[in-house]
Amino acid sequence: MSTNDDKPKSSNTVWHHATVTRARRENLKNHKSAILWFTGLSGAGKSTLAHAVEEKLHQLKCSTYVLDGDNVRHGLCGDLGFSEDDRKENIRRVGNVSKLFLEAGVIVLTAFISPFRSDRKLVRNMVLHGDFLEIYCNTPIEICEERDIKGLYQKARKGEIKNFTGISSPYEHPEKPELVVSTGEVELNECVEQVLRLLQERGILNSIPTN
Amino acid sequence: MSTNDDKPKSSNTVWHHATVTRARRENLKNHKSAILWFTGLSGAGKSTLAHAVEEKLHQLKCSTYVLDGDNVRHGLCGDLGFSEDDRKENIRRVGNVSKLFLEAGVIVLTAFISPFRSDRKLVRNMVLHGDFLEIYCNTPIEICEERDIKGLYQKARKGEIKNFTGISSPYEHPEKPELVVSTGEVELNECVEQVLRLLQERGILNSIPTN
Repeated sequence: MSTNDDKPKSSNTVWHHATVTRARRENLKNHKSAILWFTGLSGAGKSTLAHAVEEKLHQLKCSTYVLDGDNVRHGLCGDLGFSEDDRKENIRRVGNVSKLFLEAGVIVLTAFISPFRSDRKLVRNMVLHGDFLEIYCNTPIEICEERDIKGLYQKARKGEIKNFTGISSPYEHPEKPELVVSTGEVELNECVEQVLRLLQERGILNSIPTN
Repeated sequence: MSTNDDKPKSSNTVWHHATVTRARRENLKNHKSAILWFTGLSGAGKSTLAHAVEEKLHQLKCSTYVLDGDNVRHGLCGDLGFSEDDRKENIRRVGNVSKLFLEAGVIVLTAFISPFRSDRKLVRNMVLHGDFLEIYCNTPIEICEERDIKGLYQKARKGEIKNFTGISSPYEHPEKPELVVSTGEVELNECVEQVLRLLQERGILNSIPTN
């Protein structure tokens, strides 16, 4: 406590609001922040593409983070299963965390099937126009099933997994995504370039990345 | 699809793990990441101190983010109330989000009363030793109540708010916090310096900040 009796006891407790704004963070990092929302079937290449884009962005000195099942399903959403309600809540939480990263000045890349338009729209509406970039990884289900990296399609066909997107639960393809990537046909490097071009067009990146 | 039949159809789908690690992010940002967990009574000055520390860190070109009721209670935890279970779940989610920011290379500062040792321990145990720095904002309840910035103590005394920490619900003070700040007695600038010294001692910051 101050020994100066003339001084109010709480002189040191002026209420401080946040002074570090998103704009100041973006200025420091020299790029804008955004949510890159990768959506598509299981095995469509969402995580692969998201991580490959992140690698390129990191090389360009951007602040990035990928949210996917690996770092969310065991932690933040560890209490959720795969019922319709739980999947909806999973996307709601991921959307809200993405918004926090957005405010923190980070380019956040999310890789979730997120099969329902209403869920993706919910996240889109959480943020300002232009902050949410929906990227549709448009790999045909035949290719996803042929790849079957995790063996999930086989299990779904046997009925061992219920409500499996594309088999026993619908995938509602985006109607107006910011970008469609033919992840089943085009080489990964070209897919990455397509995403980076989108970020340049939208003014997220300041300069043209060099290879 | 490739027209070259000799080429595997999925040649472009080598499984990519995350290549951008926490260490690479920290290297880019030129500081280590950490969770600064501010705990203390309502009105103790947690948010004020967290935001003031963030301002200083931002001036030092650090990546930072403050999580507090303002940006969490209406979004990520908008479905939670103030029952014991809900408060516990609130802290669990905030802990998990803090861990994501930690991995993203950000110095994340959290400002929640977080009155229970078990909840704070839960978060501490989510991360590696040294990643979680518990900072106890040790303002006596008499001063918090005198300040009563939000008018909550008055309402709690009238019984209009139930389970109010310090009045009708316990605050379990930290037993071995990394830092105790006398936020009721010491000027804000000095409190900020104490936190920055802690970050230097722990090797989070590379160089001594200059005023």
